[in-house]
Amino acid sequence: MKDIIYKPIGVIRSPFKTSDQAPRQGVFSENEGIIEVFTEYKEGLDDIEGFSHVIVLYHLHLSTGYSLKLVPSVDNKERGVFTTRSPRRPNPIGLAVIEITKVEGNKIYSRDIDMVDGTPLLDIKPYIPDLNPPEARTGWMGDKFSQLINYNKNQSSLDR
Amino acid sequence: MKDIIYKPIGVIRSPFKTSDQAPRQGVFSENEGIIEVFTEYKEGLDDIEGFSHVIVLYHLHLSTGYSLKLVPSVDNKERGVFTTRSPRRPNPIGLAVIEITKVEGNKIYSRDIDMVDGTPLLDIKPYIPDLNPPEARTGWMGDKFSQLINYNKNQSSLDR
Repeated sequence: MKDIIYKPIGVIRSPFKTSDQAPRQGVFSENEGIIEVFTEYKEGLDDIEGFSHVIVLYHLHLSTGYSLKLVPSVDNKERGVFTTRSPRRPNPIGLAVIEITKVEGNKIYSRDIDMVDGTPLLDIKPYIPDLNPPEARTGWMGDKFSQLINYNKNQSSLDR
Repeated sequence: MKDIIYKPIGVIRSPFKTSDQAPRQGVFSENEGIIEVFTEYKEGLDDIEGFSHVIVLYHLHLSTGYSLKLVPSVDNKERGVFTTRSPRRPNPIGLAVIEITKVEGNKIYSRDIDMVDGTPLLDIKPYIPDLNPPEARTGWMGDKFSQLINYNKNQSSLDR
């Protein structure tokens, strides 16, 4: 099958200059950043103010190579890469659901940004809760993410 | 910014030979199909049996060109493409959350398949409900999708 070629439609601006600095999952932290669409695509953002959240697809440009089995950060056993959110995947596409704090021209501001500064933007899609299955089994992952979310919430209430 | 080059990791098998035949959104229909990972990537599917749903990213290979503003199938006004699920987007990446009915070797079977037969597969990610915002505003879209889902449910109970 033929190679697939995409052109970045924008770039993600964040405080994280390296992947070591970036938090593991944006949803667990409050990190301001900007999803910046190149001005030539700006019109495609029309009507976005009505949406509270969007799905962001981006190229994990710092990922070098992939592993079909790897130990995820939230586990201690090797798992198939397609059951993980690791960047070390055959096509290093990142996906995040982010809450929009404000839109200005070609810029979407958010506090859910865990991407490294300079990350190439591939696509933005509307987040539609009705399309999500209300319940789902999550295999080896169980409620590890839910635990992390609660842990982080408690941490940030301790910070106050 | 540089072009981004991906290699298909598999192919989607479905009964739809053209985009005219394919339903608008897989979640609204019962269409059996197969997400087939090329055998060289098969190990990446390990542990997937524990998951009821996965996120599938694929290349909308029949999409030719894009429009920054377009009239979505569920609306009658022009909207910014990034607030729609139209395939006519700058980088034609499709996203679907599908329920797994069975896994056999390198094949994931599902009844939520609205993709055209032969669609190149880009990535598979675990579906984690805890990472989804519980509530969201959906702008011009309102509850149009929810209405369609209910309409389809009623249709299929009428079919029985």
